Amino acid sequence: MLKKTIVTLAIMGGAVLAVSLPAMSSAAKAKPAGKMTDDGRAKCYECHDEVKAMKEGSKHAKLSCGTCHDMLKEHLANYEVKPVTIIEQALCGKCHKNEYESFYKVDYEAQARKEKGVPAGRSPMMDKLLAPYGFTFEHNEPRGHAFMVTDQFVVDRFAGGRFQYKKRWWGVDDVGKTWDVLEDKGPDFKMAETAKAGNPTCIQCKTSDHILKWKFMGDKDPKAKWDRTSDVIAVARDTNNVMGCIHCHDPHGAQPRIVRDALIQAIDEKGSKMFAGKDGKTDLKVVSFRDGFRKIGVMQKVDSRMMCAQCHVEYACGKGTDFGNKPVGYDDQRTNHIPLIQVKELLEHYKRTQNFYDFKHAVTGARLVKLQHPEAETYSGSVHDRNGIKCDDCHMPRIKEGGKTFTSHMVIKPRNHVKEACLRCHPDSTVEKKLYQIDAVQNYIKGKMRKTEYWLGQLIDTYAEAKRFGVDEATLAKAREKHEEAHVLWEWWTAENSDGFHNPDLARDSLTLAITTSKEAVALLNKAIEEKTGKP
Amino acid sequence: MLKKTIVTLAIMGGAVLAVSLPAMSSAAKAKPAGKMTDDGRAKCYECHDEVKAMKEGSKHAKLSCGTCHDMLKEHLANYEVKPVTIIEQALCGKCHKNEYESFYKVDYEAQARKEKGVPAGRSPMMDKLLAPYGFTFEHNEPRGHAFMVTDQFVVDRFAGGRFQYKKRWWGVDDVGKTWDVLEDKGPDFKMAETAKAGNPTCIQCKTSDHILKWKFMGDKDPKAKWDRTSDVIAVARDTNNVMGCIHCHDPHGAQPRIVRDALIQAIDEKGSKMFAGKDGKTDLKVVSFRDGFRKIGVMQKVDSRMMCAQCHVEYACGKGTDFGNKPVGYDDQRTNHIPLIQVKELLEHYKRTQNFYDFKHAVTGARLVKLQHPEAETYSGSVHDRNGIKCDDCHMPRIKEGGKTFTSHMVIKPRNHVKEACLRCHPDSTVEKKLYQIDAVQNYIKGKMRKTEYWLGQLIDTYAEAKRFGVDEATLAKAREKHEEAHVLWEWWTAENSDGFHNPDLARDSLTLAITTSKEAVALLNKAIEEKTGKP
Amino acid sequence: MLKKTIVTLAIMGGAVLAVSLPAMSSAAKAKPAGKMTDDGRAKCYECHDEVKAMKEGSKHAKLSCGTCHDMLKEHLANYEVKPVTIIEQALCGKCHKNEYESFYKVDYEAQARKEKGVPAGRSPMMDKLLAPYGFTFEHNEPRGHAFMVTDQFVVDRFAGGRFQYKKRWWGVDDVGKTWDVLEDKGPDFKMAETAKAGNPTCIQCKTSDHILKWKFMGDKDPKAKWDRTSDVIAVARDTNNVMGCIHCHDPHGAQPRIVRDALIQAIDEKGSKMFAGKDGKTDLKVVSFRDGFRKIGVMQKVDSRMMCAQCHVEYACGKGTDFGNKPVGYDDQRTNHIPLIQVKELLEHYKRTQNFYDFKHAVTGARLVKLQHPEAETYSGSVHDRNGIKCDDCHMPRIKEGGKTFTSHMVIKPRNHVKEACLRCHPDSTVEKKLYQIDAVQNYIKGKMRKTEYWLGQLIDTYAEAKRFGVDEATLAKAREKHEEAHVLWEWWTAENSDGFHNPDLARDSLTLAITTSKEAVALLNKAIEEKTGKP
Repeated sequence: MLKKTIVTLAIMGGAVLAVSLPAMSSAAKAKPAGKMTDDGRAKCYECHDEVKAMKEGSKHAKLSCGTCHDMLKEHLANYEVKPVTIIEQALCGKCHKNEYESFYKVDYEAQARKEKGVPAGRSPMMDKLLAPYGFTFEHNEPRGHAFMVTDQFVVDRFAGGRFQYKKRWWGVDDVGKTWDVLEDKGPDFKMAETAKAGNPTCIQCKTSDHILKWKFMGDKDPKAKWDRTSDVIAVARDTNNVMGCIHCHDPHGAQPRIVRDALIQAIDEKGSKMFAGKDGKTDLKVVSFRDGFRKIGVMQKVDSRMMCAQCHVEYACGKGTDFGNKPVGYDDQRTNHIPLIQVKELLEHYKRTQNFYDFKHAVTGARLVKLQHPEAETYSGSVHDRNGIKCDDCHMPRIKEGGKTFTSHMVIKPRNHVKEACLRCHPDSTVEKKLYQIDAVQNYIKGKMRKTEYWLGQLIDTYAEAKRFGVDEATLAKAREKHEEAHVLWEWWTAENSDGFHNPDLARDSLTLAITTSKEAVALLNKAIEEKTGKP
Repeated sequence: MLKKTIVTLAIMGGAVLAVSLPAMSSAAKAKPAGKMTDDGRAKCYECHDEVKAMKEGSKHAKLSCGTCHDMLKEHLANYEVKPVTIIEQALCGKCHKNEYESFYKVDYEAQARKEKGVPAGRSPMMDKLLAPYGFTFEHNEPRGHAFMVTDQFVVDRFAGGRFQYKKRWWGVDDVGKTWDVLEDKGPDFKMAETAKAGNPTCIQCKTSDHILKWKFMGDKDPKAKWDRTSDVIAVARDTNNVMGCIHCHDPHGAQPRIVRDALIQAIDEKGSKMFAGKDGKTDLKVVSFRDGFRKIGVMQKVDSRMMCAQCHVEYACGKGTDFGNKPVGYDDQRTNHIPLIQVKELLEHYKRTQNFYDFKHAVTGARLVKLQHPEAETYSGSVHDRNGIKCDDCHMPRIKEGGKTFTSHMVIKPRNHVKEACLRCHPDSTVEKKLYQIDAVQNYIKGKMRKTEYWLGQLIDTYAEAKRFGVDEATLAKAREKHEEAHVLWEWWTAENSDGFHNPDLARDSLTLAITTSKEAVALLNKAIEEKTGKP
Repeated sequence: MLKKTIVTLAIMGGAVLAVSLPAMSSAAKAKPAGKMTDDGRAKCYECHDEVKAMKEGSKHAKLSCGTCHDMLKEHLANYEVKPVTIIEQALCGKCHKNEYESFYKVDYEAQARKEKGVPAGRSPMMDKLLAPYGFTFEHNEPRGHAFMVTDQFVVDRFAGGRFQYKKRWWGVDDVGKTWDVLEDKGPDFKMAETAKAGNPTCIQCKTSDHILKWKFMGDKDPKAKWDRTSDVIAVARDTNNVMGCIHCHDPHGAQPRIVRDALIQAIDEKGSKMFAGKDGKTDLKVVSFRDGFRKIGVMQKVDSRMMCAQCHVEYACGKGTDFGNKPVGYDDQRTNHIPLIQVKELLEHYKRTQNFYDFKHAVTGARLVKLQHPEAETYSGSVHDRNGIKCDDCHMPRIKEGGKTFTSHMVIKPRNHVKEACLRCHPDSTVEKKLYQIDAVQNYIKGKMRKTEYWLGQLIDTYAEAKRFGVDEATLAKAREKHEEAHVLWEWWTAENSDGFHNPDLARDSLTLAITTSKEAVALLNKAIEEKTGKP
């Protein structure tokens, strides 16, 4: 029943580890009683100093090494025999039962396969505004962490339809090991109107399975099984679990941490100030293993803004093109990049610093950046952020069950859990009142999004006409530039998941600028057409 | 109070019958005590062999002939005096009380006059994609069998607005005899933006009233009061009841049956395999009366797929045109046709076998087939169908009321009755889970429908432009052909009522092919325009 | 805490009054015990005959003058010292507690800032059909009287974004004095994509604060602090309360009344028959004060149709243009005009009688009338109106609370309160049934609105093309004229708030005429383009 994939790798400060992957391996199953009755971690510390440093004094100090590592006896007898590291959530769940179980709880309020590009959807004009990008094939509203891998693999834009639910349509709420839920239809299987837009980097946000097989930034390395240029299908087939506990919690010492390489780079190397305190710094200590093969960022105090920003952030992971029209392939580090920059500076960053864009628009040929869920950025600087509220305060409320209070790891949509999410800080308010206020913000911002889409659509239609009536290239180039500007200022907000609630002021500011910019393009195109056709 | 329309006709294997129509005639009212106390069916059998054959040994065996026939004493005294047949549901309802009452129960969850052609509706771009067809005047979501006649008659596309609720807007949930609910505003009454698209054949799906007045296939015949060429207003005015029990149940012997001529023809004469078992045959015995004046198909075991397919099927009933541009009028049997063919073969069937199309598109001039609710076809071959589930299993659940279990004849939307519709076969699931799965399927297919509509719209807009820029006829003809193909592959799914749930695989397959085909047309038109205008 | 703005004015039949404005002034607060223990109104009547006439014998007869007027002792001592009139609702609320409290109750079922111009909104194609009018910047669904001033002031189209909630997004459900809820960001503050479309006249519908500072029709006068040409920001800043009790109830005698000048003019001077009985007259007695400086209309019996029509009516209040292209400024009385004319005669009225239009359409240049919420007109002549039902019967139901029955002054959406609103007159019906019927009407009319918008959109798009292909001005002029006609026939119904329920027959009639007219324009433009391009 339970699969056990063991990959032997020599990394992590010289420690020799191997990975076994979760629903739970038989080795893990037998654990807690503990076969090393005398614990024996002293023996391990003889060689593994750095583990001692993180473990001793921490909440996990008393756990024997054998709790998470297998084959220790063999390893001690012969150091050439590598021990096995069990990274399954189920193992952590033995002690952290509520957290573990809540993580996998299906949120039946969030529907599955809810296409955004429909009239009453999140991005009604997507098919026109994103043509011909892969997201136009299928782009759904999110529905929870338990599905982060399977949703990614089955979506029509990822692998040409090759990965499907074993139970076909009825597998949609199955939770568990990837390949218990999904099947691989094989290399010759291809469904109509699909794309093959997946890549190894984007999978690093969905799973922790490759944590020991992936070099920092996904660069090629003999010690790395997978890198940015790997065959995405092979990487996918080696992905058995959604993001594990270890994405945010260091297993040796239970310290809060981040592991996503491009985020560590953005904060540590490129100095993004997005999460910095008044001193201009974050509470993040970056630890590098084996000459930088892998880095982690450990924090003193939980800062869920950084933990969540590992994924809920704008990032570039697909191949693209530079503004001189040269392709940028997966060998280029620009395909694993988190800008951690606010929306109004973003295009400049992509144009000047990165020299990178994702795709050309089907009609205008504008060089567009495709945006990903920038929840961290939109939240940054908001009134809640300025008051010290962090992601988990609203999205992972403390829940009381059977007399015990714990942090729910079923990440919620606060709108559906106002009592837990809002009233803890706003005890004088009511659910009714808070819902009303939330709706007001989202109604207003949705209005602005729809208006922006209207004007972007006008821009595209007028551009097509301008071309047909022979408007000069200089004018068309100006219109394309405005399209590029307006696009980023708009898509940012349909790509993120709060309908503007994270930061309504910024949303308004950005969206209205997108409208103004689009109107300018329409005006200059219309003027040029009129000059061409001689009709006022 | 109760009206009694008596039509004397000599049909049905020589038996002389007449029809009296329901809420219930006074004759029917007096019945059950039974005036023929010695029953006397032996006397009737002396002449009516074929009735004996169906009746004896059946569930209805013990009913005296006088239960459903009036004027028997007079008939026995003088065979020239014709007896009367009472086909009112109310009569059946005396014994089948629960079934009868449930049939007329208003489903207040299904809204009335809910236009499909609105942004959040079932077919948001209908006005563009179906222009200038009658359905663009008013096309509503269905709301239950009790309204099948009145909804048809009042809809703006049927009779120019001539038929209206007596209680005007407030008559919308009145159930009963057609002309108790509706009034005829007369021949001179005409409302703006209406069509007169009704025809006698389409009424045959809505009522059983004409069962003895309509020859097989609706051909003209001296014995037939109504035929395909009759004045639709006259036929409508002679329609007093929605489809009766006798549409699906033979009154003499209670055998399951079908009476819709074009369906019998499709299965029996044209050999559609849609409902065939492994032996390539259905369990249908076609009985012909009076040299084929009328046929019925009797089955051994209830197969609701065929019973429901009498109406929930694609059929042609309006006049049209052949592909050589000659009109096809109501005198032509092609105006009463049920293909019973799957979606991907359908256009070929209409183009080659039938040589028939419904209308030309307002902008492209493509020769389009207008599709009707093909629920039977979409269901055919689905996973539920392959597992032996039939329509009634999900749409007519067994209900327990007052200790008695009966089959609800208020045909339901399973989504609103998951417990009864789904959990009987899926006892390990839950209502929440099943709703989630149903929503997932429908969300996904709705996404594909909206994308198809986007691309069909692009096709139409680009075609209009191509014409204006002088693109050559050969290219336009190719684009029109693609429009014809894509249209059938799309409209099939907005015309049927399950949002793809009947067969999501086929829905995906068909809709994505419609998208691909539309994109091809757009590409070839754009290329031609660019060649014409000299702009890349 | 409580502010007290005192404005001394000499009006009202020579009486010298001053205004103090509500949440409640300290003077008002101390009242009810009554400092004029011997009442003393006889003394006041010595000079104020006209007050005596209204007060004596009325429900308010026994209230001492000091109940609502301050500084009386000083005034009696020296007539040059002007007394103060307290017009705060809070003062009325001391006796009329339920009415007062219900007025300010927030209806949490009606969402705030719900933009109409979104796909599933009330007017999905607004941005195209109303371009470039101010309403395209923000136009929300209504949400109740308690917000009538603040909603008007914060809306993006009113004052360039200068007025904002003090609590920013979270102030959206704050009720109270305007400037406790809002702040003025100052003259230099300007938000992108906003308009400055407010004017002093439109504020007269939102508040009663200026009742003693505004001459009849808003004409300039030395005695009037504000008039039509005043700086709208200054008027806004002097607006502290939403419409008071005195808008509909005469304070001296409690008689039902109207005060909105343009409505009084429409009924009394221009003779609109909209609310007239069989004798061609209304029950309205117009009383003129100080040579017409101010007029009020007093009625014998409550006729809420007229009381509500003070605001829920089509009116012109913004500046515009005449059909000879001369600007019509605020100095012109046409900028304070209530036609009180039915939809199908309205354009003729604006073209011939008023010679006034609001704006030119961005694409076609058609001279369009912008319509405002004509609920009074749409209701007029409806089946409910013909049966003597008045606005308050459905929108202000009698409510029983703590043994006392009162008229709720929280004006409701009947759909959300069917029991109170409908079943009092339709006791044999049920909530379920009434909701079903209401939905049916609104579904149908929404369908017609969406179809009209489709065809108006086609008109606009085809017009743009026609211009580009050089279609002659005569044809374009014809198309513009049809646009003007169709526009009024359409916008009337999205501007009013019942989705056609007030008068579905008229809605259907008007909307289908808009469709027909739009189709005619499309046809003539297409024909002209075909002639130009030589392509059929």
